Amino acid sequence: MQKNYTSLSREQLLACKGALEEEYQGYVKKNLKLDMSRGKPAGTQLDLTNGILFTLSNYITEDGIDARNYGGLDGIPEAKRLFSELLNIPKERIIIGGNSSLNLMYDAIVRFELFGTGGHTPWCKLDHVKFLCPSPGYDRHFAICEDMGIEMITIPMKEDGPDMDMVEKLAAEDASVKGIWCVPLYSNPQGICYSDEVVDRLASMKTAAPDFRIMWDNAYGVHHIYEQKSVKDIFKACDAAGNPDRPFYFFSTSKITFPGAGVALVASSPANVAEIKKHMGVQTIGHDKLNQLRTVNYLKNAEGVREHMAKLAAELRPKFDVVLQTLERELGGTGLASWTNPKGGYFVAIDTLNGCAKATVALAKNAGVTLTGAGATFPYKKDPQDRNIRIAPTYPTYEELKTAIELFCVCVKLAGVNKLLEEKA
Amino acid sequence: MQKNYTSLSREQLLACKGALEEEYQGYVKKNLKLDMSRGKPAGTQLDLTNGILFTLSNYITEDGIDARNYGGLDGIPEAKRLFSELLNIPKERIIIGGNSSLNLMYDAIVRFELFGTGGHTPWCKLDHVKFLCPSPGYDRHFAICEDMGIEMITIPMKEDGPDMDMVEKLAAEDASVKGIWCVPLYSNPQGICYSDEVVDRLASMKTAAPDFRIMWDNAYGVHHIYEQKSVKDIFKACDAAGNPDRPFYFFSTSKITFPGAGVALVASSPANVAEIKKHMGVQTIGHDKLNQLRTVNYLKNAEGVREHMAKLAAELRPKFDVVLQTLERELGGTGLASWTNPKGGYFVAIDTLNGCAKATVALAKNAGVTLTGAGATFPYKKDPQDRNIRIAPTYPTYEELKTAIELFCVCVKLAGVNKLLEEKA
Repeated sequence: MQKNYTSLSREQLLACKGALEEEYQGYVKKNLKLDMSRGKPAGTQLDLTNGILFTLSNYITEDGIDARNYGGLDGIPEAKRLFSELLNIPKERIIIGGNSSLNLMYDAIVRFELFGTGGHTPWCKLDHVKFLCPSPGYDRHFAICEDMGIEMITIPMKEDGPDMDMVEKLAAEDASVKGIWCVPLYSNPQGICYSDEVVDRLASMKTAAPDFRIMWDNAYGVHHIYEQKSVKDIFKACDAAGNPDRPFYFFSTSKITFPGAGVALVASSPANVAEIKKHMGVQTIGHDKLNQLRTVNYLKNAEGVREHMAKLAAELRPKFDVVLQTLERELGGTGLASWTNPKGGYFVAIDTLNGCAKATVALAKNAGVTLTGAGATFPYKKDPQDRNIRIAPTYPTYEELKTAIELFCVCVKLAGVNKLLEEKA
Repeated sequence: MQKNYTSLSREQLLACKGALEEEYQGYVKKNLKLDMSRGKPAGTQLDLTNGILFTLSNYITEDGIDARNYGGLDGIPEAKRLFSELLNIPKERIIIGGNSSLNLMYDAIVRFELFGTGGHTPWCKLDHVKFLCPSPGYDRHFAICEDMGIEMITIPMKEDGPDMDMVEKLAAEDASVKGIWCVPLYSNPQGICYSDEVVDRLASMKTAAPDFRIMWDNAYGVHHIYEQKSVKDIFKACDAAGNPDRPFYFFSTSKITFPGAGVALVASSPANVAEIKKHMGVQTIGHDKLNQLRTVNYLKNAEGVREHMAKLAAELRPKFDVVLQTLERELGGTGLASWTNPKGGYFVAIDTLNGCAKATVALAKNAGVTLTGAGATFPYKKDPQDRNIRIAPTYPTYEELKTAIELFCVCVKLAGVNKLLEEKA
């Protein structure tokens, strides 16, 4: 257990600062060059999936289509069945895409902008379009809004999901609020899992916009590390609440098989699926069906995915262990940081003292460790309290990660002590 | 040599009609079920490329990127080099996409609509946007315009490309004319190759719209069957004319390797490439790099592509032979039809007598042969003279095709004779 820095005197803090700076300089001298910035799997993790490269012996699909040829706009039946079983989504609600669920999300927003949805005005014809952005959240969701000129409203995250009082109020009062980004299970970056109550409130809340949409990015839907969490069925909740067209569900195998060559899907209500297919059928003749076959041949069925994910979890667990244990050992009780203990997903998120995130990231960078930019997890890259830092433990080796997270803790402490000294000046 | 039906008397025509109807009923009794509607390769043609499925032994690219992982937005260097060498386009102008050049075209128009290009007003903010559509042309180009609410202006095709007098006049006079669709080599469906003069005029013409764009879909750029035609370099022509940002060049390996799992590219000026990447980098983290590697490993270099295309041409040539020879034998000199003799590409286009295309397609359908819908090769599916029919010889077997094209000729004659009789009534 570390001392609580927030109760130290100025003199004690100065002494700590001296010791921390010495420790920090020790790391600087090591000439580290480590990248903890992005949620990429390591090569060793990808190696666990190499078998997928050699699974393609057939190219005729169950329904007799030649997967090499044109056609099959919404995906091959065996891929739909696999994901239907895995995610408990009716097959007819699923459209299989290319290698990127982000691309499916972007294109969904493009269609809202250009064509509108459900017969409502295309968003590009409106003066103001706003999106609710639970934050810290996924920077690439926010980048889509920024690209489209959609105004983002930061919604604080609570332990069981977004602040629903605020979400409900904004959605009910402002017809220009058109939707919300959600990563409902093991959220990026905090690893928060939405409670049943949050899902029900999202599904049933009154919205001033008739075309309010939930962008349900279940990116980590089967990415358990310590526990098998689940999230309430958004389709059933929305159907029950009489809002069947509200959710757009996204998923991919990017972090199941290969990030660069996975299979993504979008799922929604029958009306939305028809709308998507109408435009997607103009955009393309079909996505890569051979890669869909490869994926199904390799993963086989829902149980096959779960077995595969257990292997990946075994690879990831030591990395999460060393991060979480080091944080606890070095920062626990210091009063300088708080963090969530994710049970799955790809990230650990740390809150430093207010006003210390940028300084911490800069210190780490100066010592050769690249972290996700401070603020990146907020709309417009602006963390109002400059305190959240996303740690991505997956890419470095265990040894690299161990060093990097130890240095990180020194940086958090040094930035924190500097901040406390400032306040006492 | 057949008789010239247009000079026959009513009585002679009635006698022909009787004989043709008897011949036609003979086909109806055969219960044919043949599809000549789409430009899909046959399974036997795809078999020539099966080797590509087993070429992936590596996954680290030339520049040391793990192709399995995230990244590589604009493509792996070896893919850019292959296409640069093949198409004579500077590497830095090339962005490699997913499996569909159509998707890249659609997304290019989406960006023009939502963001504008070159600093000009987004097209979705304008009251009128028009596109020049040389016709007969590719139905999926026209479908993109229809999806976006872009008004299409039909431009007649001449022997060496679109009617440039009309193109120049419309582009110069109307600032809402924002672009033109072009398939410059072995055009779909006529197999017309643009002359140097047409390319130069497209590149240098005055346009009222400063953001006039040429959608240069070189879909059949290396798809020679009888001769090795080429088309003048659109980039050099536009650069020389001081209009470097005018062309957007599209290409894919859909009809080189597999239609469902090829590799597509978009190429343009440095300014346009920067604009594309700015938005594409929000839309996706990167396209399937493993499939790019597969493609390069299999095709190797420009010479490898040419050798491969020679194999495909040998497979296709007998099919084009039987179509062209049957047309000449059965319809030559009849005055009932005219057609181009394509030297490459995927189609043969026939003009019947005015007002006979729909009737011909209906007759064929009734006898079990599905053709591309009459009118499909024109904007809004409306052939102003109801005369153009696209024949796609690639998908049926040789034997099926032989039967289908013989029946087709009977249908053209029967529809033509009916028309001539109507006129004499």
